[in-house]
Amino acid sequence: MAAITAQMVKELRGATGAGILDCKTALNENNGDFDKAVEYLREKGLAAAAKKADRDAHEGIIGTYVHHGSKVAAMVELNCETDFVARTEQFQELARDIAMHIVASNPEYVAREEVPADVKEREIAIYKAQAQGTGKPENILERIAQGKLEKWYGDVCLMEQEYFKDSDKNVKDVLVENIASLGENIQIRRFSRLQIG
Amino acid sequence: MAAITAQMVKELRGATGAGILDCKTALNENNGDFDKAVEYLREKGLAAAAKKADRDAHEGIIGTYVHHGSKVAAMVELNCETDFVARTEQFQELARDIAMHIVASNPEYVAREEVPADVKEREIAIYKAQAQGTGKPENILERIAQGKLEKWYGDVCLMEQEYFKDSDKNVKDVLVENIASLGENIQIRRFSRLQIG
Repeated sequence: MAAITAQMVKELRGATGAGILDCKTALNENNGDFDKAVEYLREKGLAAAAKKADRDAHEGIIGTYVHHGSKVAAMVELNCETDFVARTEQFQELARDIAMHIVASNPEYVAREEVPADVKEREIAIYKAQAQGTGKPENILERIAQGKLEKWYGDVCLMEQEYFKDSDKNVKDVLVENIASLGENIQIRRFSRLQIG
Repeated sequence: MAAITAQMVKELRGATGAGILDCKTALNENNGDFDKAVEYLREKGLAAAAKKADRDAHEGIIGTYVHHGSKVAAMVELNCETDFVARTEQFQELARDIAMHIVASNPEYVAREEVPADVKEREIAIYKAQAQGTGKPENILERIAQGKLEKWYGDVCLMEQEYFKDSDKNVKDVLVENIASLGENIQIRRFSRLQIG
């Protein structure tokens, strides 16, 4: 078994924000492999974040971003549990990054649950009509339409959009990472985006 | 008749943004009285602005303001006719001031024309019910309710709200002044205000 030094623990803490004991365990369980230890903590962090996502989040800040030239701007209400976390640099940067993401990616809803039923039905009807010409059976058409609806959610719902700074993640992934490292539930309550013309 | 000096004309131009000839005329007509000349130009400016208010305004900027602590913020789409005016310091300051006003005064609509019919009816019904107890005749109750509705418009419609920097004016007055001095139609298209909690 590899020797786990204080320096290794410190580096892992710096990279993940996890506690000393968790970092020690992660390194021990992964034989001192740094990347595997990060992965291990992330998995544990995600588990912890899922529980935290049920907790009330009524503190927070309004994140804003105005693009150069002031032709387009966005605001987002980002909530957390305590004003202490709301004041951290990490949280403030996250709020600004999400506002910047909204300017770049122009979402219509925060989450798929917000899409009105008639809009959802309209989308499905369009996809079915498009697939009808293929002559495939009804159950396959249904599945094609559902697949296209999923893709559409990924285009118009903020939480499901590819994150503008890292296309390997969506916005939800970024929230979950921050829930894990800040140790509080974090929610995007609502946003607004204005553009000239 | 008082002698009108170049210095007086220059000062009047600086205060009003009006042209040289207009300033000379204004001073001549008002016997060199500076304040009366400003008033005279404003009256002429208002007349000019009323005509300009019919013209298309599709350029502009998004004005934003985030209050200290980032617990409340606002954005406003302020339109003008050309990008040239949109880039002026005066227009940018106006956009920021209106965003600041929105944070301070929390309007619900841009103008009374935006108030949905059912909301308007609900307000009138409340005012009539309040006045009913006074035992006054129906036509008087109607007039009282209309008066209260006018006051309510002044509370919730951005254009009719007292301007946060000068309670002698409403927001519309400030727009009209800027239409006069910038020489283009200026419109508030829409706004958004987010507040934590």
